Amino acid sequence: MGVVVSLDGERGKKPRLDPLSALVKDDLKAVNELIIQRMASPVALIPQLAGHIVAAGGKRLRPMLTLAAARMCGYEGRRHIALAACVEFIHTATLLHDDVVDESDLRRGLASANTVWGNKASVLVGDFLFSRSFELMVETGSLEVLGILSKASALIAEGEVMQLITANDTETGETAYLDVIRSKTAQLFAAACSIGAVAADRPNVEKEALETFGMNLGVAFQLIDDVLDYSDSSGEIGKNVGDDLAEGKPTLPLLYAMWNGDKEQSALIREAIENGGLDNIDVIKEAIESTDAIAYTANIAREAVGKAVDALAILPPSQYLDALHSLARFSIERTH
Amino acid sequence: MGVVVSLDGERGKKPRLDPLSALVKDDLKAVNELIIQRMASPVALIPQLAGHIVAAGGKRLRPMLTLAAARMCGYEGRRHIALAACVEFIHTATLLHDDVVDESDLRRGLASANTVWGNKASVLVGDFLFSRSFELMVETGSLEVLGILSKASALIAEGEVMQLITANDTETGETAYLDVIRSKTAQLFAAACSIGAVAADRPNVEKEALETFGMNLGVAFQLIDDVLDYSDSSGEIGKNVGDDLAEGKPTLPLLYAMWNGDKEQSALIREAIENGGLDNIDVIKEAIESTDAIAYTANIAREAVGKAVDALAILPPSQYLDALHSLARFSIERTH
Repeated sequence: MGVVVSLDGERGKKPRLDPLSALVKDDLKAVNELIIQRMASPVALIPQLAGHIVAAGGKRLRPMLTLAAARMCGYEGRRHIALAACVEFIHTATLLHDDVVDESDLRRGLASANTVWGNKASVLVGDFLFSRSFELMVETGSLEVLGILSKASALIAEGEVMQLITANDTETGETAYLDVIRSKTAQLFAAACSIGAVAADRPNVEKEALETFGMNLGVAFQLIDDVLDYSDSSGEIGKNVGDDLAEGKPTLPLLYAMWNGDKEQSALIREAIENGGLDNIDVIKEAIESTDAIAYTANIAREAVGKAVDALAILPPSQYLDALHSLARFSIERTH
Repeated sequence: MGVVVSLDGERGKKPRLDPLSALVKDDLKAVNELIIQRMASPVALIPQLAGHIVAAGGKRLRPMLTLAAARMCGYEGRRHIALAACVEFIHTATLLHDDVVDESDLRRGLASANTVWGNKASVLVGDFLFSRSFELMVETGSLEVLGILSKASALIAEGEVMQLITANDTETGETAYLDVIRSKTAQLFAAACSIGAVAADRPNVEKEALETFGMNLGVAFQLIDDVLDYSDSSGEIGKNVGDDLAEGKPTLPLLYAMWNGDKEQSALIREAIENGGLDNIDVIKEAIESTDAIAYTANIAREAVGKAVDALAILPPSQYLDALHSLARFSIERTH
């Protein structure tokens, strides 16, 4: 199944994460050092467990957004390093709790922390990282940042609860699905971007532009993540193929195939959402392909990326702006 | 087994929680209203689950400490209401996660939230309440309070992880046990008290006095809680008798009996700590009685209460001071 989605008018120029990574490389190194430093604890299990998930790495997309946003806004200080670390701590805490909630055994291709150390330790170390994030935020001295990130955290938790409620629910509609992904994923992207403008002390219009960019980027990112769960390249993102299906998560590709498949396909997908499990994954992947569910989902992602890019139009040209544009396109063309 | 412990020199004047409750009654009503208001969410499961644990009540001891501390320091504004609600939210979030970690089925005599709604929802609603607490703190505008409560939250998580590690560990010493209870319980008492002085904008010496009061009160409170777990009045605090024993938690009364019991008693307790379970609860309760483990534990609690009361000596006489003295004595004489 093809999951590479091209942006119209952007052919021949392959979007990549590299330009952003290159621009924030030194800052990100400082963020990583701060993360290691601040997850220290006299209780050895805490840095062990936290180190496992932090070292597993991932792309550090969210802290990179904070770094790039701050620099793009002309910020020349050092506070953005701590803010980026705060964002990554919140993200890591939610991953630890997510894996407990989802009963996941793999995270970025490694055994998940709950598999190695158990659910209890994962819950508590998540709480620790979350608290550490707020401790570090306080040191940066910005009540505005604290307001943005505490609100985002509450919305993330709301989104996770919504997702829990819609699991195994075949009546989940597109609006409910989009509400979930906006809360559970896109809110932190939005906050990560807007606090860059806050660090740079830019006017509200720029904070809001970056928030809109992050929100739409996050929506696109999660839509493609949900597409990739049905792709053979799942292995590349360190997940099992069909993780969402196994848990009966009604993501948009699956819902669309259920709504538009033939009677037999619909019944199979309905059964899969209700009961979870991978018994019929091949037939369901076929249904997703034959109904063009991937193209439908990718199109919504493409629209979101368009809104993200438009939001940044008020900002002057810069290499950071170019890198964020490239990242936005990458988010819908990535296969990992 | 007798668990009522008298403070020397205080005979004939029964310490009670009532004076404190009466003094902060109106403020506490406002706190309860704010709690209900701020646990609202469009995701109905959140106020349902949070409401279950909030409505179950408990004594609201921690928010009462914040209210009394602020008033005792001469504070006449309204910010202490929000701060007290923040403290209760953090406490409630930790209770939700505790019950998941401890696999408890009872909380304050009611089915625990994880029993009713499952572990997943309890983890996520805990996260929500924790985030809500920080959102509300930001509104009060005090970075100092945010610093105190974020640090306390990280220490609580550390204490919970330490407790997880020492579970089933017969080598746990008195120092390790005291470290655990200082972190998991007393830190929030200390923070709840000191932020009262912060709200009132009092000098550091008063903030520290209240912190010391809270820390020692919290230690005494947890010591007596651990004593009560082996008392027939466990039912009054809504726990099952022997909850700690069932989980193999090496609390001080149990450790002391293991250290000082005869060979057979020690072996039985060692086995109970290693494997959990209530098979030998009657023999173990006998061992706790015959070794005077309760008196030993209560004596440490009494010493802590002495330090708590001494710390407040720098404050001028007031009805709030009297009420806190009474509360401190109540903490070691309570049977519920």
